[in-house]
Formats: sequence, C-alpha cells, structure tokens
Amino acid sequence: MWHCQEVPGRLIAPVRQSGVRAHNLALVLQTVAKSPAPISRAAVAGSTGLTRATVSALVDDLVAGDLLIELDPAPRTGAGRPAAGLALAPHGPAALGCEINVDYLAACVMDLTGAVRHRLVEHADLPAAGARGAIAALGRLAARARTLAEADGLIPAGAALAVPGLVTADGQVRVAPNLGWQDVDARALLRSTPALADLPITVDNEANLAALGELHAEPDAPDSFVYVSGEIGIGAGIVLDGTLYRGVRGWSGEIGHITVHPHGRPCRCGARGCLEQYAGLEAILREAGVPALERVAAPLPGAGGALGLALAAAVNLLDVDVIVLGGLYAPLLPWLRGGIEAELHARVLTAELAPVTLRPALLGGDAAMRGAADLVIRAVRDDPAAWLALT
Amino acid sequence: MWHCQEVPGRLIAPVRQSGVRAHNLALVLQTVAKSPAPISRAAVAGSTGLTRATVSALVDDLVAGDLLIELDPAPRTGAGRPAAGLALAPHGPAALGCEINVDYLAACVMDLTGAVRHRLVEHADLPAAGARGAIAALGRLAARARTLAEADGLIPAGAALAVPGLVTADGQVRVAPNLGWQDVDARALLRSTPALADLPITVDNEANLAALGELHAEPDAPDSFVYVSGEIGIGAGIVLDGTLYRGVRGWSGEIGHITVHPHGRPCRCGARGCLEQYAGLEAILREAGVPALERVAAPLPGAGGALGLALAAAVNLLDVDVIVLGGLYAPLLPWLRGGIEAELHARVLTAELAPVTLRPALLGGDAAMRGAADLVIRAVRDDPAAWLALT
Repeated sequence: MWHCQEVPGRLIAPVRQSGVRAHNLALVLQTVAKSPAPISRAAVAGSTGLTRATVSALVDDLVAGDLLIELDPAPRTGAGRPAAGLALAPHGPAALGCEINVDYLAACVMDLTGAVRHRLVEHADLPAAGARGAIAALGRLAARARTLAEADGLIPAGAALAVPGLVTADGQVRVAPNLGWQDVDARALLRSTPALADLPITVDNEANLAALGELHAEPDAPDSFVYVSGEIGIGAGIVLDGTLYRGVRGWSGEIGHITVHPHGRPCRCGARGCLEQYAGLEAILREAGVPALERVAAPLPGAGGALGLALAAAVNLLDVDVIVLGGLYAPLLPWLRGGIEAELHARVLTAELAPVTLRPALLGGDAAMRGAADLVIRAVRDDPAAWLALT
Repeated sequence: MWHCQEVPGRLIAPVRQSGVRAHNLALVLQTVAKSPAPISRAAVAGSTGLTRATVSALVDDLVAGDLLIELDPAPRTGAGRPAAGLALAPHGPAALGCEINVDYLAACVMDLTGAVRHRLVEHADLPAAGARGAIAALGRLAARARTLAEADGLIPAGAALAVPGLVTADGQVRVAPNLGWQDVDARALLRSTPALADLPITVDNEANLAALGELHAEPDAPDSFVYVSGEIGIGAGIVLDGTLYRGVRGWSGEIGHITVHPHGRPCRCGARGCLEQYAGLEAILREAGVPALERVAAPLPGAGGALGLALAAAVNLLDVDVIVLGGLYAPLLPWLRGGIEAELHARVLTAELAPVTLRPALLGGDAAMRGAADLVIRAVRDDPAAWLALT
C-alpha cells in the first residue's frame, strides 16, 4: 500500500543517463562520507543498492578526481583477500571559509574530510575600516589562506564569507548595522581580490552559516534546531529537516527583533521592546553590573527570561526541540539557563508533551567561519560530477 | 563554473532503471498538471528534455492507468496534422478530504484535476459527541462521499482528515482542546469504518491542511507564506519554498500561544498573554461589543494589534512576505488590517526593504477539507508509478 506523503514538486527534474551518473557519483561519495570508518567497495554496493561493477567504476572516477582515496588493506587476519577501505581524500578540493565581524577577520582552509587545515584570525576595528577596507583586508587574509592550502597540495574549490547583516542571494549586504554597512556588494568586492577572482564566492548571514557549522560539527547533530548567536546584536540560524532555512530573501532568523515587551525599551531598529534590548551584550553587562563578560558570575534572570520568551515563540511556531546557544551565550549558559527554561516551560504549548533541549554551541567563535567552509565543501560533496568536470 | 549551493543529503537515493521510469512518469504527469491548457506529447518532450519516444511510452502508461486523457485534436487550421492535447484524467483516482471541527463535519471528493466533485457538510455539536462518536459520524459522511465518487466512476485513492489539534505523524491526536479530545487514535478509529478500511488514511492538523489547500488553490500561489486560521483557537500553517513545514512532531504553527503581553490575561494553556486571549473569537466579540461576528462593523485595533505583534515575530523569524488570513479572519480583514499593518511596519526589521502582503484566504471554510484532499491527490501525482502498480 502506498502512502500519502507530500513531495515538493520542485525537486522533479528529468533523469537522463548523464544525470544518473552524476546522481550515483554523489550517492557513492556521500556513503563514504557518512561512514564512520573506511568502507570497502563491496560495503558501498551493499549500502547503496548499486551493483559492485557500477560502484567500482564510480569509485575509480572519484579516486582519479582526488575526491576519494583507497587506504591499504588491513593486515590479513582470516580467509580471503582483505578489502581496501575508501575514505574522503584529504588532498583534493578545499574550501576557504571566511568571516568579517565587528572586531575580527577570520579565514580557514577546510579539506573535503571537513578538517580545518589552517585558521587565520586578525583582530581589527572593522567598522572604522569601512566596507571596502574591511573586505580588502579579508581578501588579503583569504589570499594567505589560499597560499597555505596550495602549499599543502589542496585545490581551492570556492570561498564563502559570513557577515553579520542582511545578505541577498547574490551576495549583496543590504544592511549590517554593527559594521555600519549599507548596500555593499560584498561578493563583487571580494572577487576583486586577484587571488580569489577565479573562485565561486558566496556571501551569507553570520548566524545562518554558524548554524550550518553546528549542523556539521558532529555526525549525530539534530536535524532541526534553532541556533542563537548572541553578540552586540542577536541573530538566529534555523535548521529544519537537515537544511538551513534562509527565508524568501535570506533574511530569516532576526530573533533579536522579536518583541518581548510591547511598550519596552526603544531599539535602534525603531521598534520598542526588542529582545536585543534585554539580552544583547550591553543589556547583559548592565544586568550583571560588570564591565566585561568574563566577570559575569551570577544568574541573569532578565536576559534569560527575555531569551526564553522569544525562544518560546520560535518553538511554538516551528516545533523544534533543540536550541543551540552560540556566541557570548555559550559561556553564559549556566547563568541564562534558569530564566530561559522557566519561560519555555510556561509558554511552549507542547512543553509537557515534548521537552526542549538547550545546549551550548560546540564550535565557539569559529562556527560561522566553519559553516562558510562547510557550504563550499558540501557543494563539492553533493555534486562531485561538477567537480570532476572541472578538474 | 559551478555554484555553492546546499542540497539536502537526505534526498539522495540510488537511481536504478525502475527508479528512472518512476521519476520520469512523475515528471511527465507533473508537466501536464502544470500546463494551463492541454499540452501535446511533443511539447512535453520539449519541456522535460526527454525524447519523444520516451514521452510517448510514458504517456501510454499514464493514459492506460487513468491518470491522463488525450483530448481530440483541435480543428485543423493550418498545415500539418494538429496535435492531440494531454490533460489530467477527471475519471481516475480521487481523494476523500475530510474535516472534524467544533460545530461541523465535512467530506469532499476531489478528482485528479483538483476539482471538487462532491461536498458534504453536516452541522453537529462534536464536543458533545465524544471522539468515538465524532469519528464514527465522520466515517459515515466519508462513506457517503465514497459512494458518490464511485457512482461517478472514480477510484478512491485515499482519505485525509483535518482535526483542530496536535496530531502525530501516525495519526494520533494528542490534544484537541476545543473538541475536548486527548490521546485519540483518530486514524485507527476512522479505519474501523468498513467503507474506508481499504484506503490509506492520513490525519493532520487543520491549519496545516488549510495552508496546503491555499497553496494549491491557485496556480500562482506564493511559494512561502504563513496561513493563520482564526476560530475559537488560533492556528497557523507554514508553507516554506512550496512545502508545508510540519515541524519535528507535526506541531508547528501554534501561533495562538505566542506571547503578546508577558503579564497579560491568563490563557487556558496555563501561560499569560497568549495571542488567543486578544484575537480569538471571544476576545473579538468582547472588543467589538457585539454578540455575533456578522455584526462587527468597526475597526478592531486590539485584536489587529495583537495579531500584528505575533505575525511580526513570525516574519522576523521566517522571512516570509505573504500572510494569508483564514477562518473568521478572512471576513474581518477590513477591520483587522490597520492594527496588523501598524505593528508589522513598526516591528518587522526588514519592513522598509520588503513589504509584507496581507490577504484573505481564498477557500473560506473549505480550506482544510480541500487541503486534506490535496494531500491525497498530490501523493498520486508525485508518485504515479505507485498508483499504476496498484491498478
């Protein structure tokens, strides 16, 4: 008996022979990627349902294209020829993951296995540098990262840049309030760095990319969660069913401007009572009565309660049961947890039926940079045929 | 040059020859379904990229399986043989779309073209009937609908039921507060109706299915929107990128319990200041000072403002730019619009960059029942190979 299940019509595309090969290349590569240990050709065939001959032909192409490696067989322990193990290639395509934030620039090199091979961070006053100055400085850092990657024998496959602002699908930053940017064509400016001119470049929101970084930070990450990034401003990245949800224009996750007190404090966005006014960096320092976050040493019921109220709205709307707290919230979680949980318990309709888990981000300040690199690496892993056609 | 684009890994499945045929059957059927007028085999080939011979073989199977019809060629007007046009079959599979609400039961018959062929509505006091009584009565109504469908020569493909409550993926209603239901196995109870025992049965939340109904109500419906269903309670259905987003447990869209006043009126859910207390049926009658909705004849700034505040949270989180107001909100929209728009304008961070459109639901009270039927029809359209294997 078949089942009623909605399948989005947009995913339907014609399958031709070349499409079958591309699809199956991706299937084999992802099967190896998901395997916790090197996996034999026979095991790939068993797990994918493809014939051994088909798998072998596909594997040969993936090895030749520097996407897979074949590890030596383990020493012979029993009867029969021991099988060689397949693994993702650590010497093939690599990603440049970059971030511009208020007080630092960062760039990393990630290989196809997801390992960060190089990590460069530069502290600077980026609002003072202006958009052109900041992007030029990031371009220099990314060029250094590329040189390091190439010295390792890696082939740069693309660059992605995280920015704390509203970014359009074509890489324009409409507004980045804490950087003081408005209508900056970040992609074009970054491409004007000669060392990056030949690479595909993507620009996306910092919280979106940090959420993607967290999604890929561990193999058993939850499929659906809200990542909340606390800094001077507050943003969120929404992962639904294993996919980052960007919204119609890529502007989803503006949780910092959810109203927590309708007649409350004025916000720089023009509204009143936004979450940012109760749980942003300045509000937390004010509530704690200390000059620096490191000195917070007592519960923060005000900030926690405000976060809980806004997160209850997110959970009521989205039915997600994991909330990942990143940025400054990760180290403060012990002081925020009580306030957040009290509000979630009181205000989430399904709280009694399904508890919500709060946890600190795994990647700390590197989440957005790593998520940016992940975006590039996943694009290669999801469409190896396109990569093979290029190399 | 290839592009960085995230593709959800879960969609990767092996493609074998039978998989290619199933995929291409769906492609051809959907191409015909999307065409605003009957479309020739040659045009299907042109639009899908499949060869004419492949299209013809697939079309023959779809015609034999009562999924497509071939209309007579139009009268000859020029040189050459005029092409026959393909259209969805109005005589093949059909869906039973059903709804149980507080004061009515409804069932409809929808054919593959999406046309509602029969519509049965029965008014009753369903909370008084209890869950078993209500579902038995709905079963009798659905059985009558099936008889009408079969008298038309239609073949029932499945039934789907909309319920105003929290429904699990396997058709259990955990809570339906306005019906007084708790932990009701609605799917099993409905299947115990002998006339429905042989059909796949799906149960889902009323606002979810109403959103799906609206999505399919017109060919150029937006891809992403929030549907808000106002009744005694308030629910929402979230459509993202053309797909209904159900949440981890199918419990998304509980907008009625978003907090609009943190210390406000107590809600029957146990929290304070929920939207439902300011914009549900009772609050609206109180604000308007009239005994029935038909007599509302002046702006409702309280209900509109509360709705605007909760919807601003949804837009800030989801970056959707269309809000569809259904249930009692559709006829009241002229009186609610001012309050909603003022809050959206003040509180949506991107309001200046991208306006939000408010519009009344197209389907009125039939939205959930039609969305239920749509769910079944789309399942056939999305996997015609499964249907052909059954017939």
